[in-house]
Amino acid sequence: MLTVVGSIAFDSVRTPFGERERMLGGSAIHFALAASFFTDVGVVGPVGDDFGDAELDVLRERGIATGDIERVEGGKTFFWRGHYEHDMNVAHTDDTQLNVFGEFVPKLSEASRSADAVFLGNIQPELQRGVRAQCDGARLVALDSMNLWIETAKDSLLGAIGEVDCLLLNDAELRMLTAEPNLARAARAAMEIGPGIVVAKRGEYGAVLFSPEGFFAIPGYLLEEVRDPTGAGDSFAGGFLGYLDGAEAHDGGERELRRAMAYGSVLASFNVEDFGTERVQRLTRGEIDERLAAFKRLTHFEEGD
Amino acid sequence: MLTVVGSIAFDSVRTPFGERERMLGGSAIHFALAASFFTDVGVVGPVGDDFGDAELDVLRERGIATGDIERVEGGKTFFWRGHYEHDMNVAHTDDTQLNVFGEFVPKLSEASRSADAVFLGNIQPELQRGVRAQCDGARLVALDSMNLWIETAKDSLLGAIGEVDCLLLNDAELRMLTAEPNLARAARAAMEIGPGIVVAKRGEYGAVLFSPEGFFAIPGYLLEEVRDPTGAGDSFAGGFLGYLDGAEAHDGGERELRRAMAYGSVLASFNVEDFGTERVQRLTRGEIDERLAAFKRLTHFEEGD
Repeated sequence: MLTVVGSIAFDSVRTPFGERERMLGGSAIHFALAASFFTDVGVVGPVGDDFGDAELDVLRERGIATGDIERVEGGKTFFWRGHYEHDMNVAHTDDTQLNVFGEFVPKLSEASRSADAVFLGNIQPELQRGVRAQCDGARLVALDSMNLWIETAKDSLLGAIGEVDCLLLNDAELRMLTAEPNLARAARAAMEIGPGIVVAKRGEYGAVLFSPEGFFAIPGYLLEEVRDPTGAGDSFAGGFLGYLDGAEAHDGGERELRRAMAYGSVLASFNVEDFGTERVQRLTRGEIDERLAAFKRLTHFEEGD
Repeated sequence: MLTVVGSIAFDSVRTPFGERERMLGGSAIHFALAASFFTDVGVVGPVGDDFGDAELDVLRERGIATGDIERVEGGKTFFWRGHYEHDMNVAHTDDTQLNVFGEFVPKLSEASRSADAVFLGNIQPELQRGVRAQCDGARLVALDSMNLWIETAKDSLLGAIGEVDCLLLNDAELRMLTAEPNLARAARAAMEIGPGIVVAKRGEYGAVLFSPEGFFAIPGYLLEEVRDPTGAGDSFAGGFLGYLDGAEAHDGGERELRRAMAYGSVLASFNVEDFGTERVQRLTRGEIDERLAAFKRLTHFEEGD
């Protein structure tokens, strides 16, 4: 079982390919849907009165445990409005209303606390530490963060990173965190804080895994249709950790980590093919494995004759 | 035999890791040195009185034909001064003196004209067309260009691209050329102009090959030491085309193209390890194949158990 703690949101998004109002979104949602193809997932996060059965059903249909989704009476769900220009690598934020997320203190049921794996989504680092302390039996704890916390709560964030097994960050954030412009050196510096595994996410360019074995670089899965990149990083994390926690994974060794990187990339690629969670909602495990095989064909080369 | 037409320069470069005055540089030089590990190379380009035996010897030591390096009496060699901040992906130009390169009209000897393969480095598109017309027996003609020509000589550039087999461009330039923000669509649009092969260069993130078989993405070879990125794109092109023209390559098929992409990445990775051409000057074929094997280990994953 995999517990994810993070934001649950309504997202209003406009891209060159269309727009949507108040879609189901948030880091915990994108993560949980992606991970649900590989393992049992439970979501911890706050919502308001405006979050109803229609939204919960999206999670339940994927078998995701929603018992620790905390409904705050009289509150409103976190809301984000943004748009993308032709360069879909850059999100432009037009409105952020934290609402109930601003007062969020994670409350974990016994089931969530006793998970084998935990994903600490991008929330205030002291809250991440609180969750981490409660999940002291977890085999694998991973953490995501963002530039805001590097700038405003760096000591807390360093403390939180020191307590996890795996750090996932955008490459620019990893460089910022360590004040090291070279990515490989930045990752090594981050590993010295504590995590044995560091994943640098590079958006459409893919991701790099740093582990005790060295590093492993994977390009992004190239798509002709990218309709909405929102949630791609969380879908990557969900595919990555979901696979590692799932039944197929056993040893946490290098082969498994690399395969997890590939599954993460595949889930992210599906996520961006349509708005919000629309594509992942209609995704099948068969499609995932088909794309994994295609991805391998599109990235492997052979040495000399 | 592979003919390259392009700039020959003196580069003065400052990076966070040091600086150098008036190093041997230019697209034709970086390309030729990289390609020389795989095939016979001849350089066509202009120099001034300030270009001496010391510079020519760097090429001759790698077996590169220098007979078509045109010395313009009383002229000065193309000079570029630039620097890089901590983000080594962005070159800041401090001074450009075209000198003899501003009046360059390529003059090809019979040997250069009868090459099997030709690389039209980044020069004015009408000059590229003139060279291409002279090399009408070449099996493989590739072209590089830049944003300047897309902005100021687009019709000529489209004409030039329509006459070659392979187009190499930075990904941003490929998008600009085709007014298509999606890279895969941009490459397809470029292939409709004529070339059967399009390579999108992505700097430290690697490169993507588009061919009749589909596409192939390769990440950059990750380095802990990047001292000077100048010439990386030309070294990539040199490794790529040099391998395709070389004795080991036979059929121009997909396997060969992918291996060429990997060799291009490897040559680019050596190029950036030291200033200008310093690293490639002391490079050996053994080191290249060692890094190719390492590169494969660092990028390949396996499907299910």
